[in-house]
Amino acid sequence: MQQLARPLGYFPAPRSQSFCSQCAAALVRRIPPDDTRMRDVCENCGAIHYQNPRMVVGTIPVWQDQVLLCKRAIEPRYGYWTLPAGFMELSETTAAGAQRETLEEAGLQTEIGSLFSVIDVPQADQVHLFFLTQVLDPSLAPGQETLEAHWVSEADIPWSEIAFRTVSLTLERFFEDRRRGHYGVHYVALEKRG
Amino acid sequence: MQQLARPLGYFPAPRSQSFCSQCAAALVRRIPPDDTRMRDVCENCGAIHYQNPRMVVGTIPVWQDQVLLCKRAIEPRYGYWTLPAGFMELSETTAAGAQRETLEEAGLQTEIGSLFSVIDVPQADQVHLFFLTQVLDPSLAPGQETLEAHWVSEADIPWSEIAFRTVSLTLERFFEDRRRGHYGVHYVALEKRG
Repeated sequence: MQQLARPLGYFPAPRSQSFCSQCAAALVRRIPPDDTRMRDVCENCGAIHYQNPRMVVGTIPVWQDQVLLCKRAIEPRYGYWTLPAGFMELSETTAAGAQRETLEEAGLQTEIGSLFSVIDVPQADQVHLFFLTQVLDPSLAPGQETLEAHWVSEADIPWSEIAFRTVSLTLERFFEDRRRGHYGVHYVALEKRG
Repeated sequence: MQQLARPLGYFPAPRSQSFCSQCAAALVRRIPPDDTRMRDVCENCGAIHYQNPRMVVGTIPVWQDQVLLCKRAIEPRYGYWTLPAGFMELSETTAAGAQRETLEEAGLQTEIGSLFSVIDVPQADQVHLFFLTQVLDPSLAPGQETLEAHWVSEADIPWSEIAFRTVSLTLERFFEDRRRGHYGVHYVALEKRG
């Protein structure tokens, strides 16, 4: 066994992959039998390394007439405002993931309500899902991915400083539905930037 | 460069991974800095190999009073009936993926309508999404993953031979909504089997 030093830093493995996770052989880029798309294929052990979009799951916490916004302490969009949200993990439901992210990022306990928005972000290979939630106690305790967290009225939303289009879209639809007195489920496909 | 023979067969790379896709070093299972979960981590180059649930996207094609069912020509659930659906690919929206799968599995051209069901399947680390669709021409041309494809009336649905719970749930809700004359968006979290 080779003795390995600690790396200088850690980073999420990118989509591009060079070696087989099963046998460490070099991968080739080709269309496998009975397929129509280029994949990363191992010609040593036969493993096909499919890649698929990821889900980001979050909540729209509401207390009295205010919604919760979190100022991001991480890239991308450090210092911009977001609803609590993050990558869905294995072994959980979308609703449980949204609840977990809200607890992790804002220290906020919620009861998950209806699914509210499903937004395709093909340029990022992501789908974002936001849930309406009931807040049990408005106390906040921002986690390490959050610089600050605040309850914000519609008139005070910093629209030009919202981190992601999926968040501003979700907030816009939320306030529209609240004025109408009826909350729908909103599916939106964001266009790929040209 | 090592000369490699062709493998005996190809298979989807499983979730369990032993080697780094970036540098081929052996992976270790540990909680990375600033994280709370066990991950596959490369202590050589620093890549963290996160894993996330996948989306399965499909349609509910309708022609007159009938829906389209496809008999599966692949495992799992070979020989059982399903709505056309499959794994969402990179660079597409959920709706475009659902449309593509319907064309691939049944040779059917559709215009995608509203999102109809979003179903968590935590035991499979999947989320299934089905869309209502408009059928332009009911001619069918089953692809290689489909033994046969048929238009089926509600009374003739083979409920005990449906491939997946997400498909039977989606069909049940579809027929209920059709009777009511109003189609909603249905979010369901399937329980993990004990």
